[in-house]
Amino acid sequence: MKADRYRFDGSKKCDLSRLPTDSREDGVSREEITEAFEKNLKKLDALQNVFYADRREGIVVVLQALDAAGKDSLIRKVATGLNPQGVHVACFKKPSEEELSHDYLWRINQALPARGEIAIFNRSYYEDVVTAKVHHLKDSYHMAERITRQSEDEFVGKRMKQVKNYESYLYENSYRVVKVFLHVSKQEQKKRFLERIDRKEKNWKFNADDLTDRKLFDTFMKAFEDTIDQTATKESPWYAIPADDKWYTRYLLSEILIDVIEKTKPEYPELPGDQRERLQTCREELVAENGGRGPAPKNKSDKKEEKDKNKNKKKKD
Amino acid sequence: MKADRYRFDGSKKCDLSRLPTDSREDGVSREEITEAFEKNLKKLDALQNVFYADRREGIVVVLQALDAAGKDSLIRKVATGLNPQGVHVACFKKPSEEELSHDYLWRINQALPARGEIAIFNRSYYEDVVTAKVHHLKDSYHMAERITRQSEDEFVGKRMKQVKNYESYLYENSYRVVKVFLHVSKQEQKKRFLERIDRKEKNWKFNADDLTDRKLFDTFMKAFEDTIDQTATKESPWYAIPADDKWYTRYLLSEILIDVIEKTKPEYPELPGDQRERLQTCREELVAENGGRGPAPKNKSDKKEEKDKNKNKKKKD
Repeated sequence: MKADRYRFDGSKKCDLSRLPTDSREDGVSREEITEAFEKNLKKLDALQNVFYADRREGIVVVLQALDAAGKDSLIRKVATGLNPQGVHVACFKKPSEEELSHDYLWRINQALPARGEIAIFNRSYYEDVVTAKVHHLKDSYHMAERITRQSEDEFVGKRMKQVKNYESYLYENSYRVVKVFLHVSKQEQKKRFLERIDRKEKNWKFNADDLTDRKLFDTFMKAFEDTIDQTATKESPWYAIPADDKWYTRYLLSEILIDVIEKTKPEYPELPGDQRERLQTCREELVAENGGRGPAPKNKSDKKEEKDKNKNKKKKD
Repeated sequence: MKADRYRFDGSKKCDLSRLPTDSREDGVSREEITEAFEKNLKKLDALQNVFYADRREGIVVVLQALDAAGKDSLIRKVATGLNPQGVHVACFKKPSEEELSHDYLWRINQALPARGEIAIFNRSYYEDVVTAKVHHLKDSYHMAERITRQSEDEFVGKRMKQVKNYESYLYENSYRVVKVFLHVSKQEQKKRFLERIDRKEKNWKFNADDLTDRKLFDTFMKAFEDTIDQTATKESPWYAIPADDKWYTRYLLSEILIDVIEKTKPEYPELPGDQRERLQTCREELVAENGGRGPAPKNKSDKKEEKDKNKNKKKKD
């Protein structure tokens, strides 16, 4: 898939300055990609349905980015077509006082999906690594001396390790975590900020503090690079995808989602033998109800046909 | 403290068969211990009050035991005197369907205290290690093949590591976890089971399944020994305390609680300089309110006296 090139699984270093922020290098046309995206959305819908029925694994999709990289609109475009019974989005903004009085994974754990479900995290515990590092938040925490007296490197290094352990715990407990960094260029961010200032209906999205973070653009990039290098694994990879062309970003995300669901090899659950037999008794009872006759029972050779029919039915839905 | 002898922090192996289940070896008298326990309860109340005000650390006390080891009555005796605003008890029984559809720490994380608070866990995630091992629960989990195809040793070994990482994460985030195993003898368990059967008002505490677990008494002991050996650390120690004499058990637990709170060196928070100055402005405003005069402001040399007064006041409360 096209997103492969942007995957980091610990086997290569991440150098954001050498990775494109737009679609040009990949030589794709907007028309072709938009069409492919529509197809992917249908595929996603079908896959998510089986995934939900299967319930053996849970999926967490982490979205991280600088301001104006397009997280919100990306979520709207990709997740809107999915069944909200089985897909939910959790936004992690500046932590509340209650959240700050707990460990930083406390609020995250509350948003973890059940197995069979997909959670999309709009920001995540990576804020507690990246932003904590860039804004030197350690010194503002009200915690025991053993934490606050650490050097910043030691503190951030421990968080990286904690996050890695956390994702490995989830993997070992039948979850998959996939992390996506929306890689936007400084010029594109400027353009989007100006739009937010100039267009009244976009004003609510702009915050004067955004410019403070913009001044730290390169520091953030470096912090994300470090974080990707230290927390990307085969089981919980990072993707640093170009975010200047929104139509391309959403296509890449749809690829990533399809890939992670397919990796779980979802299947509709099969009833155990005795319960399957009971189905037949129930069938007979239903048919006999009014002395009427239902359609003849399907035999095994009909199974494939039935499956295809279901597929078509879903498409029409 | 007397509980020291029962502490495991990873530096020595745990051999439950050589550890006493009653008070005799420690050569203590019931009278003396009961008196000391009452004193400890008062001390605990005072300590917890400062700990709550300080809010730099959180404490989790894990209680694990075989059936009829006395967890419930122990909690009643020790925790009843503590301020429920700041101390809560969470019971982890057989997981519900919703709990089973999440990772096993999901329900635990919901019960984690805020910093400044103490949570007592009546059973815990150690059930997901010990009981899962003894009752071969792995095969009953609806999870991905990568989990279910593991050998039992591999599966349990991973859980031990996960639990250790979890506690180390908590420690690094300003929490302390202390784990207590109530070590009851097989004879004492028999006596207490018979009591539950013979005394009508205790019948509700008995469950025929308890005898199934009793048949696995030695297997459980072995599993707890392994777990203690593999998860005891200096930061999150285990205590395997005698549980045949309830009056001694509760004394030992009170010692353990005092010790863990004292380790956090709790202090009443001091206001920063500018806020302290504002207090004086507020004082003047209050005094001037009805043109009246309040008591003269205390100066610094009065501070110690004031502290002692507060101490006495608390005792009277």
